[in-house]
Amino acid sequence: MAKHVGKASVTLDSDIYIIGSASVAGTKEGEGPLGHKIDVVGEDDWFGGQTWEEAESNLQKKAAGLALVDAGLKNKDMDFILAGDLLGQSIATTFGMENLDIPLLGVYGACSTCGEALALGSMLIDGGSARQVLCITSSHFASAEKEFRYPLEYGNQRPVSATWTVTGAGGFVLGNVKGKRAKAKITGLTVGKVVDYGLKESMNMGACMAPAAADTLCSHFNDMGTKPSDYDRIITGDLGLVGQKILLDLMKDKGYDIENQHMDCGIEIFHNEEQGTGSGGSGCGCASVVLSSYILEEMMQGNWKKILFLPTGALLSKTSFQEGKSVPAISHLLVLESIR
Amino acid sequence: MAKHVGKASVTLDSDIYIIGSASVAGTKEGEGPLGHKIDVVGEDDWFGGQTWEEAESNLQKKAAGLALVDAGLKNKDMDFILAGDLLGQSIATTFGMENLDIPLLGVYGACSTCGEALALGSMLIDGGSARQVLCITSSHFASAEKEFRYPLEYGNQRPVSATWTVTGAGGFVLGNVKGKRAKAKITGLTVGKVVDYGLKESMNMGACMAPAAADTLCSHFNDMGTKPSDYDRIITGDLGLVGQKILLDLMKDKGYDIENQHMDCGIEIFHNEEQGTGSGGSGCGCASVVLSSYILEEMMQGNWKKILFLPTGALLSKTSFQEGKSVPAISHLLVLESIR
Repeated sequence: MAKHVGKASVTLDSDIYIIGSASVAGTKEGEGPLGHKIDVVGEDDWFGGQTWEEAESNLQKKAAGLALVDAGLKNKDMDFILAGDLLGQSIATTFGMENLDIPLLGVYGACSTCGEALALGSMLIDGGSARQVLCITSSHFASAEKEFRYPLEYGNQRPVSATWTVTGAGGFVLGNVKGKRAKAKITGLTVGKVVDYGLKESMNMGACMAPAAADTLCSHFNDMGTKPSDYDRIITGDLGLVGQKILLDLMKDKGYDIENQHMDCGIEIFHNEEQGTGSGGSGCGCASVVLSSYILEEMMQGNWKKILFLPTGALLSKTSFQEGKSVPAISHLLVLESIR
Repeated sequence: MAKHVGKASVTLDSDIYIIGSASVAGTKEGEGPLGHKIDVVGEDDWFGGQTWEEAESNLQKKAAGLALVDAGLKNKDMDFILAGDLLGQSIATTFGMENLDIPLLGVYGACSTCGEALALGSMLIDGGSARQVLCITSSHFASAEKEFRYPLEYGNQRPVSATWTVTGAGGFVLGNVKGKRAKAKITGLTVGKVVDYGLKESMNMGACMAPAAADTLCSHFNDMGTKPSDYDRIITGDLGLVGQKILLDLMKDKGYDIENQHMDCGIEIFHNEEQGTGSGGSGCGCASVVLSSYILEEMMQGNWKKILFLPTGALLSKTSFQEGKSVPAISHLLVLESIR
């Protein structure tokens, strides 16, 4: 039996392993610092689709297929899929996952969705409800711009605080049998709550999300009785350069110095200055691609023994933006441990 | 430990109880056949909001508060919220749940979301990850029309096959301690997969969803080794009058006669002919309001001992509709048993 600890955390009873993973990404991500580590970089950003939404669905399909191959398993070995994306009604997921013939649990936490899917998947396996699950999350620059901002053809300018939605999908197979292929284990998690500091800047999502990351981190340290130095890295999803500064300040105010441990997937995935990606990468695909291509590799090499991975999500829609609402945020955290 | 059974089902190890529930709905639902059973019927459909989206968030807040009162519990007693709605980026949930100070796991399965939330909640409690959880789902006629169809001011005509989105929210507190207030227990579940018969009629969602309900029902019977007559009722979410006929036919083709057991929440909630609601009610609020106000009451009175409850969801967005895509569907099933 898992154990609910403190306000928001869970310690898993059995070891839950990431037994397969894959990353698929677009051309711009391929030119970034992690390009050579990403499993498949598209020749273009259409991935064989006729629309940007189809392109994103195809990213998901590709990541799912490769993650299964990486795990040495087949569709029929998966009890559930946990998947989501940023589009209205998670439409990239519906059409991406519809032919896999696996029961689907749709999840939504904006760009934190990768964390939510892995957290739920771990809890379901630990509790016996599933033996192996597939976790898939994606985002696509062009479908996200259409969904949240302006048509690409408009060529709008972006403030430097804006992030650049990653075109990419990450897929993960979780199971409780270590086997030869296991890459890391998930030993605990903290589920975030909605945190709303009243900020309304959809072009500065790092600032909107930093308070949620801080809240989840503090919950985790409180619930588990741990401190930043217990972890080799503390890796947020997509705060970017602007959000990172705010997070470090917020954490200092709360009595935690995480400067030595902190890393952000959004900062890692692009050469932000050279590539014109502003504050950094973002999107459900950002944290998931970086986890699969970079973080898990470092853990497999034993460079990092124990880390916190906490994707961050800005909970806005074009309707809430147009109605002048704030941009609340959420962040879900996983404890990942090396098995080397 | 729960047990994954067959392809898509789970039998729970411990009894999971619905220990509190509440229904809140709009004026039209108040005039329907279940109006006198619904806990709170609004004076108007704004519920104190300035926009339809705020109205829907307020429906959720109200249902959450009342479900907690009904369970005799407080926010701090809830380990997680599992919640969702129909709007892009589940925005009614974000603003509805943001002040409850409870960790949030956002779920999306269109109008099947109530089934998904209850299924995940049951599995998390059974596995020890949570002690008590709050499950909330909502829909609002006006916010849904704006999201998926036409502005209300346009006064569009609707074919009789169209369903009418329920303005309502249902809230449920799940726990593993029976106490004095428990209303029914959840003993098993079947998670649906995406089923796509290629239909493209967003004004005939019953037809789009019936194949998903049939698929999940057959999975359930196969996985569990049961048959329709083992259940007092088989209750779908929002197939409506058109979808019901198709479901009965599809099930007959598959060798199951469910005519004696079948009921549909969308048919129950309105006087469809007199109220001009076409094929019936729909939306995440339809199944959840009917479960709380009607189904649980019948179970508490011992009229129904064991039922299947399977909300159904049409996985479309306005973008997928405009791009000429089909309307895939999904349905998640729960086995509910009376404790009288």
